[in-house]
Amino acid sequence: MQLTPKKLNMSSGGPLIVVLNEKDANELKIHAYDRVKIIHKKKTIYVLLDTSSDIPKGKIGLFNETYKKINTKNKIKIFPSETPKSVRAIRKKLDGEELTKQEINSIINDLTSNNLLEVEIAYFVAACYNQNLTDKEVMYLTKATVKEGNKLKLNKKIIADKHCIGGVPNNRTTILITPIVAAAGITMPKTSSRSITSPSGTADTMEVLSDISFNTNQMKKIIKKTNACMVWNEGMEITGADSKLIKIRHPLRLDPPGLMIASILAKKSAVGATHLLLDIPIGKYAKVKTKKEAKILKKRFEKISKILKIKIKVIITDGKQPIGNGIGPSLEARDILRILKRDEKAPKDLEKKAIMMADKIFKLTKTKASAKEILESGKAYEKFKEIVKAQKGNQNIKSKNINLGKYCHNYKSIKNGKIKEMNNKKITTIARIAGAPNNKGAGVYLHKKLNEKIKKGESLLTIYAENKEKLDYAKKELKQIFEIN
Amino acid sequence: MQLTPKKLNMSSGGPLIVVLNEKDANELKIHAYDRVKIIHKKKTIYVLLDTSSDIPKGKIGLFNETYKKINTKNKIKIFPSETPKSVRAIRKKLDGEELTKQEINSIINDLTSNNLLEVEIAYFVAACYNQNLTDKEVMYLTKATVKEGNKLKLNKKIIADKHCIGGVPNNRTTILITPIVAAAGITMPKTSSRSITSPSGTADTMEVLSDISFNTNQMKKIIKKTNACMVWNEGMEITGADSKLIKIRHPLRLDPPGLMIASILAKKSAVGATHLLLDIPIGKYAKVKTKKEAKILKKRFEKISKILKIKIKVIITDGKQPIGNGIGPSLEARDILRILKRDEKAPKDLEKKAIMMADKIFKLTKTKASAKEILESGKAYEKFKEIVKAQKGNQNIKSKNINLGKYCHNYKSIKNGKIKEMNNKKITTIARIAGAPNNKGAGVYLHKKLNEKIKKGESLLTIYAENKEKLDYAKKELKQIFEIN
Repeated sequence: MQLTPKKLNMSSGGPLIVVLNEKDANELKIHAYDRVKIIHKKKTIYVLLDTSSDIPKGKIGLFNETYKKINTKNKIKIFPSETPKSVRAIRKKLDGEELTKQEINSIINDLTSNNLLEVEIAYFVAACYNQNLTDKEVMYLTKATVKEGNKLKLNKKIIADKHCIGGVPNNRTTILITPIVAAAGITMPKTSSRSITSPSGTADTMEVLSDISFNTNQMKKIIKKTNACMVWNEGMEITGADSKLIKIRHPLRLDPPGLMIASILAKKSAVGATHLLLDIPIGKYAKVKTKKEAKILKKRFEKISKILKIKIKVIITDGKQPIGNGIGPSLEARDILRILKRDEKAPKDLEKKAIMMADKIFKLTKTKASAKEILESGKAYEKFKEIVKAQKGNQNIKSKNINLGKYCHNYKSIKNGKIKEMNNKKITTIARIAGAPNNKGAGVYLHKKLNEKIKKGESLLTIYAENKEKLDYAKKELKQIFEIN
Repeated sequence: MQLTPKKLNMSSGGPLIVVLNEKDANELKIHAYDRVKIIHKKKTIYVLLDTSSDIPKGKIGLFNETYKKINTKNKIKIFPSETPKSVRAIRKKLDGEELTKQEINSIINDLTSNNLLEVEIAYFVAACYNQNLTDKEVMYLTKATVKEGNKLKLNKKIIADKHCIGGVPNNRTTILITPIVAAAGITMPKTSSRSITSPSGTADTMEVLSDISFNTNQMKKIIKKTNACMVWNEGMEITGADSKLIKIRHPLRLDPPGLMIASILAKKSAVGATHLLLDIPIGKYAKVKTKKEAKILKKRFEKISKILKIKIKVIITDGKQPIGNGIGPSLEARDILRILKRDEKAPKDLEKKAIMMADKIFKLTKTKASAKEILESGKAYEKFKEIVKAQKGNQNIKSKNINLGKYCHNYKSIKNGKIKEMNNKKITTIARIAGAPNNKGAGVYLHKKLNEKIKKGESLLTIYAENKEKLDYAKKELKQIFEIN
């Protein structure tokens, strides 16, 4: 059937949707929610069908996302659709079988082209979660993801990168390490993600300080000026397939190891990283729970990095408690500014970890430099300001001017003692319920850390929220966070 | 935020969608594809957000599905939404933990109220597929499903029902057994599903002969007239939660045992069945592959039926090859008409199985009757016509007047020999690619069955399709279907 296009000015937030008059749909024997096929400029595009009596017979309404792909005034040919081969591959993986290179390519290809239903993508994520991906599958996945996305071509001999497996609140070392490393003359095109499971991702925190959405060309200009950048990986569409997977992983906050490794290494490959420092924090409530688990992951990263020709150094660190005091985008940005500006309220643990990691990158890239000196001399802060300025931020922002949520609640100790244990997961939950990361000023500020002495009535933490309902929801979760003895 | 409703005349095919002006969405800090919460008549409804500049500020556009739930001219209050508790329960199951009664109730409740995203439902299905449901979980699931749906109250001492686990093409015994049993005076309110994994479900086949969508009241009237009915279980909304699960299971054709048992027994409970005959066919390509598997399933059904107070008889039958010759809605309907009308082309295997099963129901319900006699005397055909008439079908339809797809292709044997094996799965795939069950006339007709002699050049099967492309796709799969020696 050939139909005249009609732009609808409606956004679905992702899925490609077209709208047909019910009569046309009936004639084609298709129904609302069916997958249909459009041939446009000799390319096959799969879209989802909505129906409406407001669309005249003979016309096809295009949502904004669809219009971006099919921007035409010519008639559009529409067909009922067969199931893409990638769907059979997804079923195969859910059944626990290993996928071939071709099968993985078909999945990533269809993901990138928006040919898969969200439900089908969810099945793929669940399959990766419940049926482990093999090293081979992870390698295919990484390569296919890089192949389908944009690449940053910097033409430098050494390009440094770092990554942390996560699961530890704050731990926002990137925004410290990047300026330190760049100040020592090493190129560091840092791309970071928004939060998947945490109250804030590096991109969410950086967004408090500057813009973070840049395409590869804009990114190159920033790097040319400053030798570094700190941008959102999805904004630049380096790895489109991965971004779509992340979106579908989001509602259940799923982070299957195989997908995680592929996702991380694809992003490093896409920016052309030659050297990578990888941090695996372990702790009861961190993403990786035991040293054994961390070592397995370490080996997998080393093996696949080698194939991708990335020199990797993996460190296993302590993830028992949050690193830094603020948890949530603005609270974390404040911690970082305090460290860079040598403020006395700066969190010492975060500072120490950033210095240790920057030094590891210097060692890995055989650079003669001292992270401590670069930080203490103010060179790191100067580099930070350069980057913020290049990314259209306010380089002169002061930590006291960062806006926090105006609804807050102090949680006080009901006894004297020492903090013996801290439940990271609970703290994450509270910060998220309070509104982080979508509400920048929301989150949790920790007044005390492990092994600190606390008196009855002293504040343990403060919850910040941007609206009262969320503060109320968050307050309900205030129990069994600290073990005080 | 309070917004004025505006009906949009758009159907999503399921999900509840509202559309806001981008500025209103920004003010609420929500984005297209976010879940948002509406409080309407003191009930909380979760909906998905689309955005559009065509919706004026201060208004909220309602898709048809949403309008059905929120039919009001008053202003609508909209809030950012927290994650429903059921989502946490889904994650828990995906992690392999057993769910409590409360957790399962929350999932079924939110499913029925459309509070879950499709991606979240897919994760639940995947969890049930990869992490087995326990008997307890299946029981909670069955009870919760029945509780949330409509119930048929017939006020009869004996209400018979039957079910087949499936996986064997055709095997359309229901449309024979129901009139035989009803002709003997036993009430049989048969509800059937459309296909999930097969080229046709009983509902798809019955739809060739009469209407199949009736609500409980209409169903009662049909049963009052004829002592039976043969309707589509979803049409009557007996088990809404189950229907939604089936829709999400569809793209990957997933049929996890726990969900299957709950789905079947919930439907039997909802029609008030007192006696149930359950058929588990086994075969290399059937849904159940081994006798061992069948016996485990048999025990689970017996255990949970007992709790639900349904007297069950489970039979394990031969599922090595299709039962009957036609595969696809119209082709199967023709087989049935031929049996009921004692046509010489009637498939003997299907007839024999239906008689055996009807006799088992007679034994289970302690009824003195002979299925063979009822069929041969024409009483079954008379009862069938009564039911078809009550369901607004053409009771006088002849088998030769059933329309088959006008595009067809004969697949011929390239050697002499005997058929040693038949690949049910391949046959199913071919029939589905040809267009079954959506295209009623599409499917496969088998000219030969297992152990039959075949000469070189003789037709093994004919593919029927309603359009040429689908026939071409189906032809591509024509290999390794028969083993002939």
